Amino acid sequence: MSVEPVSFTLNDLPLRDDLRGRSPYGAPQLDVPVVLNTNENPHAPSPRLARALADAVAATALGLNRYPDRDAVRLREGLASYLGHGLTGAHVWAANGSNEVLQQILQAFGGPGRTAMGFEPSYSMHPIISRGTGTGWVSVPRDADFRIDTDTALAAIAEHRPSVVFLTSPNNPTGTALDIADIARVAEAAPGVVVVDEAYAEFRRTGTPSALTLLADHPRLIVSRTMSKAFALAGARVGYLAAHPAVVDALQLVRLPYHLSAVTQTVALTALDHSDELLGAVDDLRAERDAAVAWLREHGFAVADSDANFVLFGEFEDRTEVWQAMLDQQVLIREVGPPGWLRVTVGAPEEMAAFRAALLRATGR
Amino acid sequence: MSVEPVSFTLNDLPLRDDLRGRSPYGAPQLDVPVVLNTNENPHAPSPRLARALADAVAATALGLNRYPDRDAVRLREGLASYLGHGLTGAHVWAANGSNEVLQQILQAFGGPGRTAMGFEPSYSMHPIISRGTGTGWVSVPRDADFRIDTDTALAAIAEHRPSVVFLTSPNNPTGTALDIADIARVAEAAPGVVVVDEAYAEFRRTGTPSALTLLADHPRLIVSRTMSKAFALAGARVGYLAAHPAVVDALQLVRLPYHLSAVTQTVALTALDHSDELLGAVDDLRAERDAAVAWLREHGFAVADSDANFVLFGEFEDRTEVWQAMLDQQVLIREVGPPGWLRVTVGAPEEMAAFRAALLRATGR
Repeated sequence: MSVEPVSFTLNDLPLRDDLRGRSPYGAPQLDVPVVLNTNENPHAPSPRLARALADAVAATALGLNRYPDRDAVRLREGLASYLGHGLTGAHVWAANGSNEVLQQILQAFGGPGRTAMGFEPSYSMHPIISRGTGTGWVSVPRDADFRIDTDTALAAIAEHRPSVVFLTSPNNPTGTALDIADIARVAEAAPGVVVVDEAYAEFRRTGTPSALTLLADHPRLIVSRTMSKAFALAGARVGYLAAHPAVVDALQLVRLPYHLSAVTQTVALTALDHSDELLGAVDDLRAERDAAVAWLREHGFAVADSDANFVLFGEFEDRTEVWQAMLDQQVLIREVGPPGWLRVTVGAPEEMAAFRAALLRATGR
Repeated sequence: MSVEPVSFTLNDLPLRDDLRGRSPYGAPQLDVPVVLNTNENPHAPSPRLARALADAVAATALGLNRYPDRDAVRLREGLASYLGHGLTGAHVWAANGSNEVLQQILQAFGGPGRTAMGFEPSYSMHPIISRGTGTGWVSVPRDADFRIDTDTALAAIAEHRPSVVFLTSPNNPTGTALDIADIARVAEAAPGVVVVDEAYAEFRRTGTPSALTLLADHPRLIVSRTMSKAFALAGARVGYLAAHPAVVDALQLVRLPYHLSAVTQTVALTALDHSDELLGAVDDLRAERDAAVAWLREHGFAVADSDANFVLFGEFEDRTEVWQAMLDQQVLIREVGPPGWLRVTVGAPEEMAAFRAALLRATGR
């Protein structure tokens, strides 16, 4: 390729106009000792589990010349069994990360001439995937406590008639969970589908119910989940949802055929067989989270209540300066969310100790 | 979910209008002894390779709680090295099957208000993914020999000014390869990007060059490939492309973050290390293909010249009847392509013997 025209760049390509000037989405992937920026679970699979995964893959590998089960039937049954609530494989759909699940929802129910609505600050991928599928985006602000005011939400729904409403419980990056009665009110009022993104559901504080309890009564409600967080399998890229079987039928019209590899299906099924180990860190992480919230408040920071495996805290006049001062001490957190706030993923005890020490130094407290 | 409203179906959901009445794409996945319907490679990975894949996955599994390398740098370098032609990782992009690669191309360069063009009969996913991304579809017919008449192509390009042109070499389902000079003429004339889908490139007959040879001079040319066919890894879902690095920059604006799992990256890299074994069946399959073409012609069938691992043959007054009569004899082929024709994947010698015997009986020859 030595004759490649040196002057040819992205700007010389017939890129879509709405993509011009944009940057690829994603947090920096930096190689530092303490990585607390993408809400990963610090508990790596054990050598025993790694071996079980490898053995399962070895068996699958002997048939890798063949396409995978296009409908991922066994995996969907396994996920349904994990979720409980009387769900079956017919209620579940899976894809390469919940991002792909959300993209398929927007391809089926959103798209050109339609609108999706979210309550921000929230997960940045909701508007990005909406725009990527040609779906209009309506952002409704949360209140000062990062809560969704239900009357505001219902008024916005009545005004914009969105085809897709995104709720999040707990919300990223604020950690805020939703009241189940509020989700039900939105589900009744929304003219299209309502997606409750429960990526962090397993980290909820005791007594916070899941929107799964609402599915039986709301056939246009979709609950999305992931194996990336509580299941500690971010590298395996398995997202999934539970909904009425008709919703699953709809997604099969837009999914790319054979979207989920045989290896991914095997890894996820094996992980479900070892869910005790994989989910074993969740209680520790919840305790570590509650301790982090308490510690931050003791030291005078503003902190959002968190039902997730991260904590949003502030407020800083120049949050970039604090973020950089943390990174200079080898602690990577995330500059995300409302201006003046930063987000830290709840890591292992020694990582949180490093975080606390670095933060005190970075802020001079 | 026992209280689920029984009467609720797909039709009760606010599905996009253009999806109403459609069926999920994909060939039947039937459990019969001779499966020759999806252009899979009959040569399964050896136990030795399965073990190598498992060992590599065991190492990767220890870090599965972390997100994968979002840019899949090592895999892209490995694929570039396999392709040769002076390509580097910066010229290569990979995703979950070439379907996802094509979808990303259409998200970056197609979309609402834009048009993609293909020369049909061809790969059915090109129009499906185009429509799925809101891209208009212009179908230009091939000539009676399933070739693209370049003057017709240039006239269609001048008329429709497509943002994306799909070429296929060899073409699915006809097996027809393109002349490299014709690809160059289309690339010069097209106002947008030109995708040469080379999913079956490794099966080309001797002397048919790859469009990779044109990349250095055509920065809007994209060559897509897959590990599903010659590499015998359909179950691993690894598609990729080679293009100017600016094209790769563009795709990074639309790819879902962490779209390619750590396990997929590991499996594909390990497969590249074992490409001698995986590609070892290609020459046998080419010989088996040429024998099938000759045998079919000897027996009075019309047969399209094939540079791929499948053969399109006909012509039948009622191809569905022939397809069913083959299936009744436990041989699954594909009802696809122009009316009156059927497609058979080139399998192992004993599978092709079963195919020949079943076809003689099915057609009474």
